[in-house]
Amino acid sequence: MNIPQSNLPRIIVIGGGFGGIALAKKLAKKEVQVVLLDKHNYHNFQPLLYQVSTGGLEPDSIAYPIRKVLQGYPNFYFRLAEVVQVDTVNRRVHTNIGPIHYDYLVVATGSETNFFGNKNIEEKAMAMKTIPQSLNLRSLILENFEQALLTDDLHERDALMNFVIVGGGPTGVELAGALAEIKKGILPKDYPDLDTRRAQINLVQGGNRILPAMSEIASQKAEKFLEKLGVNVWKNIRVTDYDGKHISTNTDTTFEAATLVWAAGVKAVSIKGLDAQEFLSRGNRLIVNEFNQIQGHNEIFAIGDVAHMETEAFPNGHPMMAQPAIQQGQNLGVNLVRMLENKPMQPFTYKDKGSMATVGRNKAVADLRRFKFQGVFAWFVWMFVHLFFLIGFRNRVVVFINWVYNYVRFDREARLIIRPFKKRYQDSPPT
Amino acid sequence: MNIPQSNLPRIIVIGGGFGGIALAKKLAKKEVQVVLLDKHNYHNFQPLLYQVSTGGLEPDSIAYPIRKVLQGYPNFYFRLAEVVQVDTVNRRVHTNIGPIHYDYLVVATGSETNFFGNKNIEEKAMAMKTIPQSLNLRSLILENFEQALLTDDLHERDALMNFVIVGGGPTGVELAGALAEIKKGILPKDYPDLDTRRAQINLVQGGNRILPAMSEIASQKAEKFLEKLGVNVWKNIRVTDYDGKHISTNTDTTFEAATLVWAAGVKAVSIKGLDAQEFLSRGNRLIVNEFNQIQGHNEIFAIGDVAHMETEAFPNGHPMMAQPAIQQGQNLGVNLVRMLENKPMQPFTYKDKGSMATVGRNKAVADLRRFKFQGVFAWFVWMFVHLFFLIGFRNRVVVFINWVYNYVRFDREARLIIRPFKKRYQDSPPT
Repeated sequence: MNIPQSNLPRIIVIGGGFGGIALAKKLAKKEVQVVLLDKHNYHNFQPLLYQVSTGGLEPDSIAYPIRKVLQGYPNFYFRLAEVVQVDTVNRRVHTNIGPIHYDYLVVATGSETNFFGNKNIEEKAMAMKTIPQSLNLRSLILENFEQALLTDDLHERDALMNFVIVGGGPTGVELAGALAEIKKGILPKDYPDLDTRRAQINLVQGGNRILPAMSEIASQKAEKFLEKLGVNVWKNIRVTDYDGKHISTNTDTTFEAATLVWAAGVKAVSIKGLDAQEFLSRGNRLIVNEFNQIQGHNEIFAIGDVAHMETEAFPNGHPMMAQPAIQQGQNLGVNLVRMLENKPMQPFTYKDKGSMATVGRNKAVADLRRFKFQGVFAWFVWMFVHLFFLIGFRNRVVVFINWVYNYVRFDREARLIIRPFKKRYQDSPPT
Repeated sequence: MNIPQSNLPRIIVIGGGFGGIALAKKLAKKEVQVVLLDKHNYHNFQPLLYQVSTGGLEPDSIAYPIRKVLQGYPNFYFRLAEVVQVDTVNRRVHTNIGPIHYDYLVVATGSETNFFGNKNIEEKAMAMKTIPQSLNLRSLILENFEQALLTDDLHERDALMNFVIVGGGPTGVELAGALAEIKKGILPKDYPDLDTRRAQINLVQGGNRILPAMSEIASQKAEKFLEKLGVNVWKNIRVTDYDGKHISTNTDTTFEAATLVWAAGVKAVSIKGLDAQEFLSRGNRLIVNEFNQIQGHNEIFAIGDVAHMETEAFPNGHPMMAQPAIQQGQNLGVNLVRMLENKPMQPFTYKDKGSMATVGRNKAVADLRRFKFQGVFAWFVWMFVHLFFLIGFRNRVVVFINWVYNYVRFDREARLIIRPFKKRYQDSPPT
């Protein structure tokens, strides 16, 4: 892997997501060698992936080169690598570009889509956790409409224009809202020769309310917003099977849809060597103590989505979102330095900054610590907060320009099929 | 194909490039039915593809949805389709989504990379005529540097950091200049653990000067600019073979390089049914008269790169660039209407607006009709002209913002490997 030996203790960080980057920033210019491994060369701002899928933003403006984040940090090494296994006995990480020894290891691998073992759905549904996945979904949505034009079979045409989104969390809600806006604002102009009023957007939620992690009022308002936009919201229904066209559920309700987006769950990305049952909690998360150390290994830490830290306020671990990852990364950065200076580490405490979801233009819901509000103001706060947390000045400006343009013009210009999805799928499964 | 029969004459336009779009705009709201076919759903601003390959611009900001161009035009139909064959006897176009009858046919298929029959080069070299190709090149450049870090074999490392660009036209010159700027401004910061001074950028030109279509002074100045940036310019050398590493030429000069970009020629994209030798000129171009009609078919027209119109000023046809395509598209738009009104058509006359090429920041060369100038002013004119010809207000703003940012910060932030090139190549050849 060609990383020089030095007298400094070596910290390997697996993953350049919110947690890994926050940690790296805290370790800049400290007396440590940091090796950051990621299978992508960019950090990806996941909360805005749904806007890539719906043509509102370019993928490049929500991604940021990891090397650029680390520019000017001495003793930092980035390697584009996939981790194969962790050897905790010899303190070694095995990767597709060779093995490397660690003194301290930080697992910040994040999460991936959880299909709960349903192979049919895994094979036929679309996920939206990475940029390539989001671009595949963008291509598929557009290809469906192009194809709907060509058929005289009304059933087939309806299925091509029927979108079923499974999962009523923020991702599902935001995607459903965006699709509804496309149906209303863009489709009639782009497809004058297609009866796009027949397009359907369905949001299917297993529980009895959408946005279950937010307040009751947020759930109710979000549902109202979605209904106003023409989204069909289905509650207390679980999707059980999908063959690429027919969707079964645990009730009598069925759907015929060429597109099923699965946003119904995530699980931690586990690593071989750290996947023994003793380490793991629900959803493959690594059980950690208040210093983010995993059981029996003071030199191995886990942060963010992949870490399961039980506290009084969060008996089932912290929510799998950006904020806990960022805060744990920052706290661990401080702790690693303290540890090396033989000072006691400080336990992690989560400062809940609240949560938000946007449904459409002028329509968002926000639960902050003291205030809960919905509507135009929440929407502006949502935009401001997301711009603030985006990495990179250029990204912020480009995203802002796009949002202003899309708002003023009711438009989304990145409706481009750069890499066709359907065609490629015939060759090899898309990544 | 589900396009309604109407009493209006049907004009089929194959290709949504500069020519096809210019023609479509002229036909808007005329008494014709227009069917535009393209295998992509977007218009692609080819002159800026090299900036996509070098991380300076997002692909989405130089692409524009074709459907959006046609919004609000009555009797316009866009179909995402690949043309298989033209049946000139029955006046029918066969496509992958079915056949369609035409009254008038306009071939505006543009051009593709010409490897002059060299299969080895075609297989191993990178082309840069489409957005997916440009993104593949972007990925490959970045993957090469990541890989260069991993090897102790100095020869291999040098080959990974050696870029050979074949073809001294505007594309080759602009790409070479951009790579040289990356070498200088970005690599040392991104790869502090790699001796990036050893990276080489070579521009290989078969003739005795680069930019042969421009003035002598432009060629000389461009060469000086390139040398100042550290590009090795090789003249009077033709590349003859490439096996993925070793490059042979018609002289004793050879190169060891993991990347060969082929920008040494284009040929028209021909269509089965219109590819008989009697129709074709050099480089597969369709021979047309001064009204853009092909031989023996008053109802079939060709415009842009694919059209070979001999005039006194251009005995070998017009240059294969945006301007002749746009002007021919506009002229044909007027002529089709005149033809349908039984008025005489007006012969095409090319208004040469000059040509330009940019080498790097503050470094461009311009040959306008009355003035030839080089340097900072030419560079500003180059930027202004390209912004002007970009389609779409949003695209212009985003490109402008990126240029300002890149200029001020000496940076290019879209250095992202969204779809790895090397890995994918093992599965199936990239498109």
